[in-house]
Amino acid sequence: MSSSKQPPGAPLHRRIRQPGPGDRDAVLAFVEATGFFRDDEVAVAREVLDESLAKGPGGHYQSYVAVEGGTAVGWICLGPTPCTLGTFDIYWIAVSPDRQGRGIGAELTRFAEAEIIRRGGRMVIIETSGRPIYDPTRRFYTKLGYREAARIADFYAPGDAKVVYSKHLAPPADASR
Amino acid sequence: MSSSKQPPGAPLHRRIRQPGPGDRDAVLAFVEATGFFRDDEVAVAREVLDESLAKGPGGHYQSYVAVEGGTAVGWICLGPTPCTLGTFDIYWIAVSPDRQGRGIGAELTRFAEAEIIRRGGRMVIIETSGRPIYDPTRRFYTKLGYREAARIADFYAPGDAKVVYSKHLAPPADASR
Repeated sequence: MSSSKQPPGAPLHRRIRQPGPGDRDAVLAFVEATGFFRDDEVAVAREVLDESLAKGPGGHYQSYVAVEGGTAVGWICLGPTPCTLGTFDIYWIAVSPDRQGRGIGAELTRFAEAEIIRRGGRMVIIETSGRPIYDPTRRFYTKLGYREAARIADFYAPGDAKVVYSKHLAPPADASR
Repeated sequence: MSSSKQPPGAPLHRRIRQPGPGDRDAVLAFVEATGFFRDDEVAVAREVLDESLAKGPGGHYQSYVAVEGGTAVGWICLGPTPCTLGTFDIYWIAVSPDRQGRGIGAELTRFAEAEIIRRGGRMVIIETSGRPIYDPTRRFYTKLGYREAARIADFYAPGDAKVVYSKHLAPPADASR
């Protein structure tokens, strides 16, 4: 989990925490504003966010937001992959368009990986689209140590493949001492 | 959707229908009796079955049972794959161990495919394990026209790969006339 772009330690004015009901509108606004998601996908994001807000740490979906100046500017959502032992999905990552390119997505991903390890996870799955608009997204995952594990043609729609990224997580070094 | 093993038309004493609350115990009993599923997987099957019983045709999960002599002896469960246009998952197929090898699984699968086409689907995804105990299951899907679209090592557990099968569905012939 090294990064050459991120200074060690996030800037003081940014933090990652669980979202509260007051973050809901901001998150949904930037999920839509990214322009990456169809209406039906935004609807799924809303459902997932609402379920994680309603059920909290005991629920299936675990959400975290990156907050700057009191406002949520990034969102990540993870959960254990059903019927697996130790595999987790990162279901959603989104960063407000006016805050992209500043390492927020990478910070959220590393935070999520640490949380998955804390919950006993050993492997992370991220599914994304093979469409050209997602080229930067896929490069982002590759840079964070994810590798393409599968590609299923026509999955999301005709001509729109699903690309599955996976990463094996190592337990924290001090746990093996 | 041809089959060399199945006579055209199922035997009169077998039918496929939506399950009612009275089928629940029989379905869960044979899901467990197959010996294919861990306790946590049986729990997921129970959740999915209960949701399809509670929400019926308007819900996400659509269940169908094969019934012989008034008793459910096979179960199939499908639903639209979230965030896709026209892709459906067949989430569960199970046949009572004492009725296997008689074409019930194939009949349920063809029924599910027809239902998916009826609902506007164009592609079916079935995910299963790469473990040797699933060899007959994977041969079963291949025989029904599914092809291996992806294989993700260590997905279900260390050493237990996920194998993803897909099948493109053609609309019924008379719809294109």
